[in-house]
Amino acid sequence: MSVEIGIASLSDRQPCTVDGRPTTEAGRTAEIIELGVQADRAGLDLIGVGEHHSRDFAVSSPAPILAAIAARTGRIRLTSAVTVLSVHDPIRVHQDFATLDVISGGRAEITVGRSAYPEPFALFGVDINRYEEIFAAKLESLLRLRSGSPETVPHPVQDPLPLWIGAGGSPASVARAGALGLPLILGYLGGSPDHLRRLTDLYRATGEQAGHGDRLRVGVAAHYFGAASEHEAAATYPHYHDFLRPKSPGGGGFVVSEQAFTEGRTLDRPLMIGTSEQVTEKLLHLHQAIGYDRLQLLADWGGLPQSQVHDSVHRLAGEIAPALRESAD
Amino acid sequence: MSVEIGIASLSDRQPCTVDGRPTTEAGRTAEIIELGVQADRAGLDLIGVGEHHSRDFAVSSPAPILAAIAARTGRIRLTSAVTVLSVHDPIRVHQDFATLDVISGGRAEITVGRSAYPEPFALFGVDINRYEEIFAAKLESLLRLRSGSPETVPHPVQDPLPLWIGAGGSPASVARAGALGLPLILGYLGGSPDHLRRLTDLYRATGEQAGHGDRLRVGVAAHYFGAASEHEAAATYPHYHDFLRPKSPGGGGFVVSEQAFTEGRTLDRPLMIGTSEQVTEKLLHLHQAIGYDRLQLLADWGGLPQSQVHDSVHRLAGEIAPALRESAD
Repeated sequence: MSVEIGIASLSDRQPCTVDGRPTTEAGRTAEIIELGVQADRAGLDLIGVGEHHSRDFAVSSPAPILAAIAARTGRIRLTSAVTVLSVHDPIRVHQDFATLDVISGGRAEITVGRSAYPEPFALFGVDINRYEEIFAAKLESLLRLRSGSPETVPHPVQDPLPLWIGAGGSPASVARAGALGLPLILGYLGGSPDHLRRLTDLYRATGEQAGHGDRLRVGVAAHYFGAASEHEAAATYPHYHDFLRPKSPGGGGFVVSEQAFTEGRTLDRPLMIGTSEQVTEKLLHLHQAIGYDRLQLLADWGGLPQSQVHDSVHRLAGEIAPALRESAD
Repeated sequence: MSVEIGIASLSDRQPCTVDGRPTTEAGRTAEIIELGVQADRAGLDLIGVGEHHSRDFAVSSPAPILAAIAARTGRIRLTSAVTVLSVHDPIRVHQDFATLDVISGGRAEITVGRSAYPEPFALFGVDINRYEEIFAAKLESLLRLRSGSPETVPHPVQDPLPLWIGAGGSPASVARAGALGLPLILGYLGGSPDHLRRLTDLYRATGEQAGHGDRLRVGVAAHYFGAASEHEAAATYPHYHDFLRPKSPGGGGFVVSEQAFTEGRTLDRPLMIGTSEQVTEKLLHLHQAIGYDRLQLLADWGGLPQSQVHDSVHRLAGEIAPALRESAD
């Protein structure tokens, strides 16, 4: 199959990992830049860096992080994952990523979406109750900027700058991406391939109806760990639990039981956590269901030790990606 | 004397240089990143990158450019020159430069100031007639953010993030910097050391009156070229003329005659364009007049060939800087 295979980091961080290592924002940031360099060397297609606005994450502004990766790499594509467009000035977003595109020789992308958390709205003083309206207006501005109105500097190397819609599962977001003929990246964090299929069917139907049939592309974002053994895969559970647990009383998040974690790793469920063979089988199964064009696998969550993350990324590049590419469509 | 010595680039660019070389935004951007790497290797203390919003400049967003330089350097300090604060969200400015600070291991600075051009106000929809009020309010926000209110992520390595006020010569701006106890960088683009002295006297008097005597620092920004010979220095005139000429009928800028250029290169005038000996003499003379703490010399203007810029930067690092540092205060 022809599919772009990449990784992402959300920069999640706690003061201390579940295995007792203290962390810093600076250390976490350095790890992410190294991860980008390593993914480039390993031949992966893409790295995405998330934007968050609470102490539970190290990165609030992906563009400078991606620029630092760009300066040390030559091939890998670079995207936000996601830019919280509704709290920013679309002009500055376009300038930042056009600058990244120039720095990287045409490797920048913007992925815009809704924040999974309320913090950015409070911080930037944007009324979360007017989210839909504000997002739609800013997306329209960004689309105009991409087509040169108003003209801004620098002009990206890619014309226009690639722009993806990131969606968690809202049919309205999916239909909007289709209607605009924009590529769509779907979070596969719960449910099953059948559930995703309903969303990709909606996307493709809306897109084709709007005359964008040849521009439609589907990406999938999922949680990933490529382990040396079933034992190593299962042993990541405490990290996964720590990654998703609510970080404050009543705060957002999920308490994932070990049973739910184990269940999530089965064929029809979203967790891409297992040996290379297990993950390859799940990704092929998902491809049969929805025919994706891009994978963006969250590689460094819950304080996994950096050496394990590196090995996992090398399994993706060296074992899983070749197996996917060699398979029939 | 103890003085920080650095360079700056405003990224000025025309489609074709006066000596007939076509240019691109991407090429100009790559030159600036290389200039930062070279300045670091040569031992200079600082590189500043300007922000502009017209086609006459390649860079609109300095933070990603500085991040790319940070990724390839280990020592040089990195600043905007200047951030047009009045058109941006101070929260995002602080996040971008705190991110740069983390990437660079504590080498980021923000220099804020008024744009010399009207384009940013038109582009971002900010009323230029309300400039003073908007700038003052956003500077107040930025100062609060630096002291942790509201708390944003990432926290800079430096606490607080260094913040300079860039001023062209407005006594009000100079007095504001003094009253706030912020370091001040003054453009020395016309006038004489005596003229600058009136401004630094005002800055120091205002600062001392406000109880900030020990926090006051003065930087000087000037146009620079360190030549191998008087002949090479004089021959830069067509580039200097092209740098400053109005780029559209009625547009901003100055037509600099060859006589004014030559006059500007004399001891009591601002152009730091000459042999290392000539420039050193002028900088010592200026230091006697105003006692600056930092120099930020515009190194790559008017389409000067990159090889000449590199040689000029090496003269600054290898000949002028040592001569200044060895001189008595």
